[in-house]
Amino acid sequence: MSRKQFRTLADPAEARETIDALELGGGSEVVDLQEAHGRVLAERVDAELDVPGFDRAAMDGYAVRARETFGADEADPVTLDLAGVIHAGEEPDVTVEPGTCAEISTGAVMPEGADAVVIVERTDETEREDGETGIEIRTAVTPGDSVMVAGADIAAGTRAVGPGRQITPREIGLLSALGVDRVPVRAAPKVGIISTGEELVRPGDNLDSSRGEIHDVNSYTVAAGVEAAGGKPVVYPHAGDDIEELERLLRTAADDCDLVLSSGSTSASAVDVIYEVIEDKGELLLHGVAVKPGKPMLVGRLDRSGGGQSAYIGLPGYPVSALTIFRTFVAPAIRDAAGQPEPAAATTSGEMAVEARSEAGRLRLLSVGIVDDGSGRRLVYPVDKGSGATTSLVEADGVVAVDPDTDYLAAGESVTVQLFSPDVEPPALLGIGEDDPALNELLDGLSSVRYLPTGSREGLRRLRDGLPDLAVVAGPVDGDHGAASVGSWHREWGLLVPEGNPDEIDGLGELVDRDVRFINRETNSGLRTSLSNALAELADERDVSRHSLIESIEGFEATVKAFESPARRVIEGRTDVGLGLRTTADKHDLGFVSLGDQRVDLLINLERTEKPAVERLEAVLQELPEECSSLSGYRFPGE
Amino acid sequence: MSRKQFRTLADPAEARETIDALELGGGSEVVDLQEAHGRVLAERVDAELDVPGFDRAAMDGYAVRARETFGADEADPVTLDLAGVIHAGEEPDVTVEPGTCAEISTGAVMPEGADAVVIVERTDETEREDGETGIEIRTAVTPGDSVMVAGADIAAGTRAVGPGRQITPREIGLLSALGVDRVPVRAAPKVGIISTGEELVRPGDNLDSSRGEIHDVNSYTVAAGVEAAGGKPVVYPHAGDDIEELERLLRTAADDCDLVLSSGSTSASAVDVIYEVIEDKGELLLHGVAVKPGKPMLVGRLDRSGGGQSAYIGLPGYPVSALTIFRTFVAPAIRDAAGQPEPAAATTSGEMAVEARSEAGRLRLLSVGIVDDGSGRRLVYPVDKGSGATTSLVEADGVVAVDPDTDYLAAGESVTVQLFSPDVEPPALLGIGEDDPALNELLDGLSSVRYLPTGSREGLRRLRDGLPDLAVVAGPVDGDHGAASVGSWHREWGLLVPEGNPDEIDGLGELVDRDVRFINRETNSGLRTSLSNALAELADERDVSRHSLIESIEGFEATVKAFESPARRVIEGRTDVGLGLRTTADKHDLGFVSLGDQRVDLLINLERTEKPAVERLEAVLQELPEECSSLSGYRFPGE
Repeated sequence: MSRKQFRTLADPAEARETIDALELGGGSEVVDLQEAHGRVLAERVDAELDVPGFDRAAMDGYAVRARETFGADEADPVTLDLAGVIHAGEEPDVTVEPGTCAEISTGAVMPEGADAVVIVERTDETEREDGETGIEIRTAVTPGDSVMVAGADIAAGTRAVGPGRQITPREIGLLSALGVDRVPVRAAPKVGIISTGEELVRPGDNLDSSRGEIHDVNSYTVAAGVEAAGGKPVVYPHAGDDIEELERLLRTAADDCDLVLSSGSTSASAVDVIYEVIEDKGELLLHGVAVKPGKPMLVGRLDRSGGGQSAYIGLPGYPVSALTIFRTFVAPAIRDAAGQPEPAAATTSGEMAVEARSEAGRLRLLSVGIVDDGSGRRLVYPVDKGSGATTSLVEADGVVAVDPDTDYLAAGESVTVQLFSPDVEPPALLGIGEDDPALNELLDGLSSVRYLPTGSREGLRRLRDGLPDLAVVAGPVDGDHGAASVGSWHREWGLLVPEGNPDEIDGLGELVDRDVRFINRETNSGLRTSLSNALAELADERDVSRHSLIESIEGFEATVKAFESPARRVIEGRTDVGLGLRTTADKHDLGFVSLGDQRVDLLINLERTEKPAVERLEAVLQELPEECSSLSGYRFPGE
Repeated sequence: MSRKQFRTLADPAEARETIDALELGGGSEVVDLQEAHGRVLAERVDAELDVPGFDRAAMDGYAVRARETFGADEADPVTLDLAGVIHAGEEPDVTVEPGTCAEISTGAVMPEGADAVVIVERTDETEREDGETGIEIRTAVTPGDSVMVAGADIAAGTRAVGPGRQITPREIGLLSALGVDRVPVRAAPKVGIISTGEELVRPGDNLDSSRGEIHDVNSYTVAAGVEAAGGKPVVYPHAGDDIEELERLLRTAADDCDLVLSSGSTSASAVDVIYEVIEDKGELLLHGVAVKPGKPMLVGRLDRSGGGQSAYIGLPGYPVSALTIFRTFVAPAIRDAAGQPEPAAATTSGEMAVEARSEAGRLRLLSVGIVDDGSGRRLVYPVDKGSGATTSLVEADGVVAVDPDTDYLAAGESVTVQLFSPDVEPPALLGIGEDDPALNELLDGLSSVRYLPTGSREGLRRLRDGLPDLAVVAGPVDGDHGAASVGSWHREWGLLVPEGNPDEIDGLGELVDRDVRFINRETNSGLRTSLSNALAELADERDVSRHSLIESIEGFEATVKAFESPARRVIEGRTDVGLGLRTTADKHDLGFVSLGDQRVDLLINLERTEKPAVERLEAVLQELPEECSSLSGYRFPGE
């Protein structure tokens, strides 16, 4: 085994400088105006024509010689002959001679002779003595009134929009007015993305778990990040650990792209391969950075077949690490190369809901979630499931940068959270507790909810600590939990067995007495608590210790995480009996041995009952029995 | 002329309700994960598989039976036999029997028998007496250490992401891990866009200004806005004012789209046409809203050929009005239909730099620009060039909503600005003053600069009022301007004449004495000031009044806006002589009669000299002589 270690880690500032010194493209291209939205102007655009190109009526009304309206008012109007009508989009065929006016539409060309427009609201049509139409002008105007002269908006030769300006609908408006339909924009740097690892399989393809295959998370994730930063992602097939294959892929990407990003193969054991390729076929500028997560970052250059080099950055393999390093170091460099502005500073402050420990000597980018307590405090809690966990990607709202000199954040300490984007809002409702199919329906009816299905016990514990708004607790709730129940239901629980119940299991006694394999749920689960209580009753009946019963159940300590997990083990034949719900058994056509009904309680933090999302929760609860009509073994209040 | 007026304007809340009641699509579609970035999940996605799908080594090291490491430490290591090696992506072919361990890579499948991993850093390879490799374990581990058990990240059957969630790179990460490559997302409402008006020409096509043609600004502008709101824009050919053509186009769009947006034809004179179509071939729900700009809004429905109706909203024709109404009323409805979250509240507060008047009875959405004064104050100033001006699209940063009951905002009053987007930052430097080709080069070197070329006099006036950071003044500067000059140059000015100077103009006297047509610049222009001074000298020489000289110049009062405008008039043959710069004459191969050199001064507000952008300006000034080497008639300091 390779014993390479990261002995001299670069500090983050050095890593940033090294990346800044890479060339990530640049240059410009010309695109259709319709495709230019969001791009950045590469050159100044000057007006090539006057806008408007002619003296233009700015209102509906009558084109007049202003001098002839002097003195006109409501009491003493001036009457002019109507010489003609001018619509927008046509050449005037009328001249406004003294004593006349011309009806004119907004946007039409001012006729010869006229120098102002009287708006229609200050005029009246009258019939003159000779039967001709006359126009009564009831206000005085001065030359230029309600007329936009040629070039008044923007004159030919004027600087219209400068380089570096991002093209929003407003710039599209001005460029349209100038007749510009092709726009010089900063070229999007082309970024090649290569995930490495023999075990990777593209999403959509089947996994062979016995070989340890997993889906490739980083390719599409990083591609989306590249796109958001203004780059053009190119996703290459993932590479195994074969050095020749990897070298070929990196070379292909280097030939085509301004920047090549790999992910994975940077850990101590696999690093040699990619390290060797970069050293051999390019240059390695930096290896390892003092940041957590993300230590094993590589920065360098790759030789191109035809000469020259592309930039290269190696991201860690774990998704949270890869995305953190991408966001912190790579995205700013891509934005810079694309000329894209840095997004608006997206930070929020709050106080740590619990303590968090860090590690001296490395900048810690601590993933955190946020919840508002409903009375003005914003609580921040770590989301630290290890960088291998992909769920932590969506359970966090941002990161707290913990200085290398700080090894401890105390509960209550004020912190600044760098949000993942300016649009990140803390969830309107944070729930923690039991997982349950009816609850899933309930959550679907709430917008902006975050639910962490870590089990009833954990929900109750965190609720007591004041973190979530909602705890969902299945089974008996002990003691004073300092919370308000806003709703509840009952669910039928018991033993899941193969279809037709081939082992003829008819109760808990069989698990104890017979040679069947069982699969349990984790200790945090309310189902497990109810099972333990039922075993205690059985022990009383039999007058033995509960411990001795448990010792007789093969697999009692084997636990799985979610309410469906035992069912899947039974279906796969990996166990004979699992702990679960009637509705799960029915869904999967399994046999079911009922052990009772269990109450599921929705407990709200007493200080959060006024939060709008709690009201919304109560409203959605009214509809829940209907939404859950397909679930078997459920009873709702009033049913 | 139609005398229809907007007698009963809906208030903005009513307009919003009417639009909310329209059906703008909805439904869902399934897209590739790679295309899902930015879309909104239509349904809950549950995990269909355990992640990871197997017990997985979380670190590089050795898979062991934890029990066998109990008691091991640095001083007293345990040595185990090496039973084999397991890499990621392969099925273990080794069982960890008592007394043995297996080398294992991060991500590899845990072998039979092992229940923990000892990280490589706490081990050493040793050679045993029998020549075999032994592994010294220098720490104790407990079962599960450095192992991620199957389903620990997310277990099959668990709710992974809920409906309504916007898909960012983080959600793409979790969905990838779950193997999901096709994602159910909210359908983007299809929005048809039709600009109306005989005078419209697509950007890129030539204009016939004599017919009053202008470029169609709204189609692409609104299309970009629709896209940003999560809709799918379909731009139709623009319609003239012919009722049958318009009806056909509206019907086509209604058949294809969820919402049809027209712009234009809503003013009093043109409204009848579109009004008639909507009333005849659909229903009109609302006509006119009490908001400025944007009063003439229509809301209704259009019948489809095959039955059913599409939603319809008629926007005003003027670009600023159209975009304001779109942003205020239409974009939120599109976002809602697309399930897109409202963007983060983007507001800033500041104080009015000058007073602004409004109009009672209508909500005023006052376009404003923002500038920071460098010492903590944020100044807000109206950008009100009339809704017909397209330049005001890019000169504003947001709007101040002025209540219908308020008709006056005082200078110094605190206001809240709704920024056009959360990313809007006030320009780093605001300049006002003379337009000049060398200045354009200077501005190109500054990022985030806004320059309003309203002439030297206006620049000086606004600088005295304390608005801009920079005033650019050409020609003599009178009195104490309370500013610091950070740079200057000289430019040669004079008379522009056709190539070869056919009229043999040799000075100002010719303009007075001969029958030639002249074109002047606006009174705010520094060129005009220098011209006036030169005429005053000529009057002295001739011992006549300046006024009498001016009276003798045909066209002295005819003014155009920008430094290139007179040249273009000369080229077009619309005038014989224009006021301008040598460099403009050379650029357009015109003849030039020099009248002197004029100094151009860059004056900085004394209170803003510390702004970073001012320092940047001084740096760019150093490079300016080189950048301007192609400009003739320029002299820079030190040259």
